[in-house]
Amino acid sequence: MDTLEVALGARSYPIYIGPGLLSDAGLLARAVTAQQALIVTNSTVAPLYLERLQAGLRCPEQHVHVLPDGEQYKTLETFAEIIDTLIEARFHRDACLVALGGGVVGDIGGFAAACYQRGIRYVQIPTTLLAQVDSGVGGKTAVNHPQAKNMIGAFYQPDCVIADTDTLSTLPRREFAAGMAEVIKYGLILDAEFFAWLEAHLEDVLSLDTDALRVIIGKSCELKAAIVAEDEHERGRRALLNLGHTFGHALESIGNYERWLHGEAVSIGMVLAARTSAALGSLDSADVERISTLLTRAGLPTEATDVDAERVLEIMQLDKKTTAKGLSLVLLEGIGRGVIVAAPGAEVLRAALEIGRDG
Amino acid sequence: MDTLEVALGARSYPIYIGPGLLSDAGLLARAVTAQQALIVTNSTVAPLYLERLQAGLRCPEQHVHVLPDGEQYKTLETFAEIIDTLIEARFHRDACLVALGGGVVGDIGGFAAACYQRGIRYVQIPTTLLAQVDSGVGGKTAVNHPQAKNMIGAFYQPDCVIADTDTLSTLPRREFAAGMAEVIKYGLILDAEFFAWLEAHLEDVLSLDTDALRVIIGKSCELKAAIVAEDEHERGRRALLNLGHTFGHALESIGNYERWLHGEAVSIGMVLAARTSAALGSLDSADVERISTLLTRAGLPTEATDVDAERVLEIMQLDKKTTAKGLSLVLLEGIGRGVIVAAPGAEVLRAALEIGRDG
Repeated sequence: MDTLEVALGARSYPIYIGPGLLSDAGLLARAVTAQQALIVTNSTVAPLYLERLQAGLRCPEQHVHVLPDGEQYKTLETFAEIIDTLIEARFHRDACLVALGGGVVGDIGGFAAACYQRGIRYVQIPTTLLAQVDSGVGGKTAVNHPQAKNMIGAFYQPDCVIADTDTLSTLPRREFAAGMAEVIKYGLILDAEFFAWLEAHLEDVLSLDTDALRVIIGKSCELKAAIVAEDEHERGRRALLNLGHTFGHALESIGNYERWLHGEAVSIGMVLAARTSAALGSLDSADVERISTLLTRAGLPTEATDVDAERVLEIMQLDKKTTAKGLSLVLLEGIGRGVIVAAPGAEVLRAALEIGRDG
Repeated sequence: MDTLEVALGARSYPIYIGPGLLSDAGLLARAVTAQQALIVTNSTVAPLYLERLQAGLRCPEQHVHVLPDGEQYKTLETFAEIIDTLIEARFHRDACLVALGGGVVGDIGGFAAACYQRGIRYVQIPTTLLAQVDSGVGGKTAVNHPQAKNMIGAFYQPDCVIADTDTLSTLPRREFAAGMAEVIKYGLILDAEFFAWLEAHLEDVLSLDTDALRVIIGKSCELKAAIVAEDEHERGRRALLNLGHTFGHALESIGNYERWLHGEAVSIGMVLAARTSAALGSLDSADVERISTLLTRAGLPTEATDVDAERVLEIMQLDKKTTAKGLSLVLLEGIGRGVIVAAPGAEVLRAALEIGRDG
């Protein structure tokens, strides 16, 4: 088991990474010391891992709240149902909420933990690659608003994160690939060497080699944790992590959150950001090609040629990274070097969006 | 104008206290620097003070969200409506929410500011005595759950608090008295000298003498700020501020949040806590009398003889101050000396609840 510390002063916490952790009763007992625990999970993950988790937990009072599976349930209504469960079970302020599942379960579960009695303990057990490398680190919790993603939420840090690499064996290939979009993103914005490692070892990763999984999860968490420690509330450098996300969120919205998984939309968004960077002269076109090739090898889409560019631009204006200073965007000054810039004019963005169509 | 600092490291903020502050455009311009401001207020306060505030604000984009007046609207639904307003107005992450009103407006407005895009700026302009001496200090925000008060919320600090003592001139006498319950509470738990000052100067306070108002608001905020600075998230000493609240919340619930104002229920609760303290031998019965007399002089109820003691005890079990270690309670070891203790057995509490009935 690898242990990684997210350094946030009094709210620092460890991330445990490795195989077999869900069966490690000693670890679970140390992680969840509360008398009362509510496991929040979903209808897909529950049949696979709930029993294993319950067998390991030592809390005298255990309750379970099973959500339907899907981003469309990441709503204030679902959040309110979890609160109802906590109230009905008469949960105290020193109870613990355990989120067992992917990003949606972690985001809603974390937000419920943040708000119930103004904050109870919270342990995250991410079971998807995306959650293990992204949403599990950094304390962002939220639900969606009908008009925009993640509009209602809190920065709230867990007690610890337990990333059991074995859970990836039951993850559909498409979802694994979606997680890889975020893994590749860390290389792109922060670490050219890691990007090159991914180019060289992608087959090991895709065949779920345990050592390769430990590398990508460990490295991703380490890179993200360093940024979060620097800028917990996303006032500055943390926005780097949004590479591809401004485009991506617009695409997800246009696709009604059904057409693309989050990571797939981010993959297309990263290619659009790379093309925009190339158009502005800060990235070689050969690097755009390298990026697009690695994403394709990982099983990810890189084009959305049938989408209306004007609609994308319009939605980007509402994107939450918009500030009073105008839309900002993450671009690349080479592989491994992300930069936050004021968004270029609409014509540059439009051109990036339309390249696929013309080419 | 008096200025008082709430010392919370990077999240420290000033409280401004004095007459005429709502007409002080210079102060308002310094307090609200955002481009976009949403004023959240209610249907009672808006006709009195909204225009004055809007005239002083310099934000290019100003929106207003008017809530119906009343604790029964302190719900997740009302919260969601404020979020809708923020989304429809396309508010950015660096926008500011200004809460103009009493405790309910501050609690919901603060919670909306805490959650919108995971936290935007927030300025509190409390217009009731209760809000000026209590809910305006300490960063507790929340909405109620149908089954219990303040169950869904966040610790979230404002940019500043502006307490204009002139607004108390339009406050109904009954609400002013309810605020006095909290003022008296600070003396009881922390400052015997302040309690004695209140005994000596209550008539000045009740006639809204400006200097007397500055003393009670300043002293209350100072005492509360010191405790909050020590224990922001109520892990320990901050619970002292709950003197009378565990009993009080139960009474409010039984009265369906209609029979008593919060401060009135707290007043009765403080007498019950004093009686419990006397029953356990830590407080003289003469002091119980002094407490009850001052509360009565302030226009507050001190008895709830028709309420079923068993129902009170039952609701206290669910109270959010309950921990895995069992119910804790704030009692008195003399005037000016509050202590947090494990709740005594039901028979002691029952006796305290039933004294009024027998006597």
